[in-house]
Amino acid sequence: MDGLWFTEIHGENYGITIKVKNVLKSINTKFQKLDVYETEGFGKLLTLDDLVMVTERDEFIYHEMIAHVPLFCHNLPETVLVIGGGDGGTVREILKHKTVKHIDMVEIDEEVVIAAKEFFPSLSCELDNPKVKLHFKDGVEFVKNKKDLYDIIIIDSTDPINVGEGLFTTEFYKNCFNALKDGGILTNQSESPFHNADWVTNIYKKLNKVFPIVKMYIASVPTYPAGIWSFAFCSKNVDPLKNFNENRYNEYRLKLKYYNNEIHKACFAVPNFAKELIF
Amino acid sequence: MDGLWFTEIHGENYGITIKVKNVLKSINTKFQKLDVYETEGFGKLLTLDDLVMVTERDEFIYHEMIAHVPLFCHNLPETVLVIGGGDGGTVREILKHKTVKHIDMVEIDEEVVIAAKEFFPSLSCELDNPKVKLHFKDGVEFVKNKKDLYDIIIIDSTDPINVGEGLFTTEFYKNCFNALKDGGILTNQSESPFHNADWVTNIYKKLNKVFPIVKMYIASVPTYPAGIWSFAFCSKNVDPLKNFNENRYNEYRLKLKYYNNEIHKACFAVPNFAKELIF
Repeated sequence: MDGLWFTEIHGENYGITIKVKNVLKSINTKFQKLDVYETEGFGKLLTLDDLVMVTERDEFIYHEMIAHVPLFCHNLPETVLVIGGGDGGTVREILKHKTVKHIDMVEIDEEVVIAAKEFFPSLSCELDNPKVKLHFKDGVEFVKNKKDLYDIIIIDSTDPINVGEGLFTTEFYKNCFNALKDGGILTNQSESPFHNADWVTNIYKKLNKVFPIVKMYIASVPTYPAGIWSFAFCSKNVDPLKNFNENRYNEYRLKLKYYNNEIHKACFAVPNFAKELIF
Repeated sequence: MDGLWFTEIHGENYGITIKVKNVLKSINTKFQKLDVYETEGFGKLLTLDDLVMVTERDEFIYHEMIAHVPLFCHNLPETVLVIGGGDGGTVREILKHKTVKHIDMVEIDEEVVIAAKEFFPSLSCELDNPKVKLHFKDGVEFVKNKKDLYDIIIIDSTDPINVGEGLFTTEFYKNCFNALKDGGILTNQSESPFHNADWVTNIYKKLNKVFPIVKMYIASVPTYPAGIWSFAFCSKNVDPLKNFNENRYNEYRLKLKYYNNEIHKACFAVPNFAKELIF
């Protein structure tokens, strides 16, 4: 283990380590510590407060799964709200759906977008698309008093600590519910059921108070704690399996690296240890 | 990161690190380096040649998935051959199926069984069951010239390097095919499609030469490289979905922590990047 290594310890007892070639950027923004590394095996790596946000090599898993699962379940997705997601990966995936006319992306920290545009062109490539409006604001404030505006809301946040904390409250989820149109769908990243059992239980308790339909789905993300990652699919009346629009999936023939129609149906099968956290 | 840490670097560029309380055993056997650690977050950890084999905390995922998937697809599983699996976890899961009358377990390195019995009672608990016969032999030799003996063969091996290499050859797979009865099923651990793409491609190329039915299935194993792990389901004529005996699954009401009937059907949905390795 010669040379420079980025190590993220999850909790106190274990973690991952990635060999670093160069430190490309290291700043303290108004909100958080932000670093960009050139790694040996994962391309470029963006960390916030020393936690892995994205690597060029495995970001496709998280972004495909948080975006295509809700979009292929919505009847006619036209207006989308992304909260967080400053690296641009989620917006890139959303815009593969040609029905989408407008995306509001609300990122609290403009420095994340600046870093993404400089160092992660494969993620940030659609942030200047005329369909995308960037708001450098607090997502918690942004959704207050919004009514019937969005077909899809995607909460692409950090963890429920520090700057991300407000994005995991019942009040925030209620405001998102109100901001959704009829037939609307919300997805968020809902942490690791293996690593953060308590967080997961809390998130689903709150979501269940607000949304009639709440389902966990799962993906394997190599650079996130414990590798097994969960997302929440929440809606007023849309079922992720019954309302999966497989015809549209077949028609689009998207070139994706993780998500496919079989994965869509399979990802809602949840291991027993994760089920126990949310029922 | 004070104190003692076990770090496994996958390839050269990344890895996992686990905080260690105590080194419980550290020997060189006739075949490999064997260490047992007491960790902070994963219970006890067994490594061979400094690669994670099992931790008490997450071993259930690998063992449930390598055992219950084939067993619940077989018509009447009575005789089982386990190659490797010296920690005992696979045998423990197999014996939850009451139709099983006899297991041959062929572990090349008796020291693995000795360490498992001393330090991993929750894994090795069934190794003295009268239905189990232990053979401290080379699995490659053991299966030669065996005909129509087993309903299920499970290859619970290390990686295709060093002592495990012979368990990944076409000739070995042919001998296993011959050792299976009609209606027989073989599963093996087939490495990480994210971390070891070349290994995965090679394994499936060889399996496809021997077995009419070869299907990849997937589980998330936190302490294995990249977290996303694959298994191969191979048979003469048994389909893992059409022949899944869900009635028997419901009847048994096993108390498992990962595997369930939904996971059984879902685990054969493979991400695109993994599909590309094997088709």
